[in-house]
Amino acid sequence: MIPPVICIVGKNKNTKSMIMEELISKLKARGLKVGALKYHKHGDFEIDIKGKDTWKYANAGADTVAISSSVKFALIKKASSEPDIDDIIENHFADCDIVLADGFTFSDKSRIIVTESEEDIEVFKKGCEVLAVIDQNVGSNDLLEITSAVLRFYSMELAQRTQNS
Amino acid sequence: MIPPVICIVGKNKNTKSMIMEELISKLKARGLKVGALKYHKHGDFEIDIKGKDTWKYANAGADTVAISSSVKFALIKKASSEPDIDDIIENHFADCDIVLADGFTFSDKSRIIVTESEEDIEVFKKGCEVLAVIDQNVGSNDLLEITSAVLRFYSMELAQRTQNS
Repeated sequence: MIPPVICIVGKNKNTKSMIMEELISKLKARGLKVGALKYHKHGDFEIDIKGKDTWKYANAGADTVAISSSVKFALIKKASSEPDIDDIIENHFADCDIVLADGFTFSDKSRIIVTESEEDIEVFKKGCEVLAVIDQNVGSNDLLEITSAVLRFYSMELAQRTQNS
Repeated sequence: MIPPVICIVGKNKNTKSMIMEELISKLKARGLKVGALKYHKHGDFEIDIKGKDTWKYANAGADTVAISSSVKFALIKKASSEPDIDDIIENHFADCDIVLADGFTFSDKSRIIVTESEEDIEVFKKGCEVLAVIDQNVGSNDLLEITSAVLRFYSMELAQRTQNS
């Protein structure tokens, strides 16, 4: 089963990643298996540590590099087109209970919008379901509210899937 | 189609990773799409850069973390059992022409053995096809020989697959 996905969208990077971290740890505390996905706008990004074997193999030109042990698996792959969130979720997150996505504004997923101004809401809504709208100066009450909204969404999605199956 | 896989096995880590790098760059120069896979014996490993968003999300407890752009995709996943090389190849390397694996001695894949002593050959052969046996003090002639052996293996595998299809 494909897990429910919630995007955290808005202009303020720091607030978005702080909300991601908070939600991950809150949902983990509830016993859920949580996935986190980030959209990187600006082409290439660094993710490996210079000098490690995996870094060397990517540097030597490998198109796909992976490392695997009994407790962890990691993969770094060249891509040639914009990512498709549904493909990613289906291929890599099917074993999660819920996925939080940092960005992916252009997707059709339900979302939490971090606003700097009123206009941001329409810019980032894009016709999708909005679970919460949060000011960039988010406080601890806001975080409680977001967590509740996410848990409500998760329960409803779960109920719907059970009904449909 | 599942690509042909060659394991580089033996005790000497540096020689194995040097051979991996050399082969990756040689095979890339031939226009092949090359995958590199490393087996990590000792449980956990580091692969992300401290302070990056993906690092923070893993640190907050996410079971699967991924980052995606138009040119690169990366995935870091918790695991709970020894990796299965066939599953990994099928799920993550199907778009490669050939995969070089650093380690995975316990697999049934054809292999290049890096030896420190005569006994190593039997220890690392494990009943599998051996493409080359190389002294840990590998020279540039040895590298040419290994590359030829790998290209021969690749051509034969390709011919066999074409015949079977």
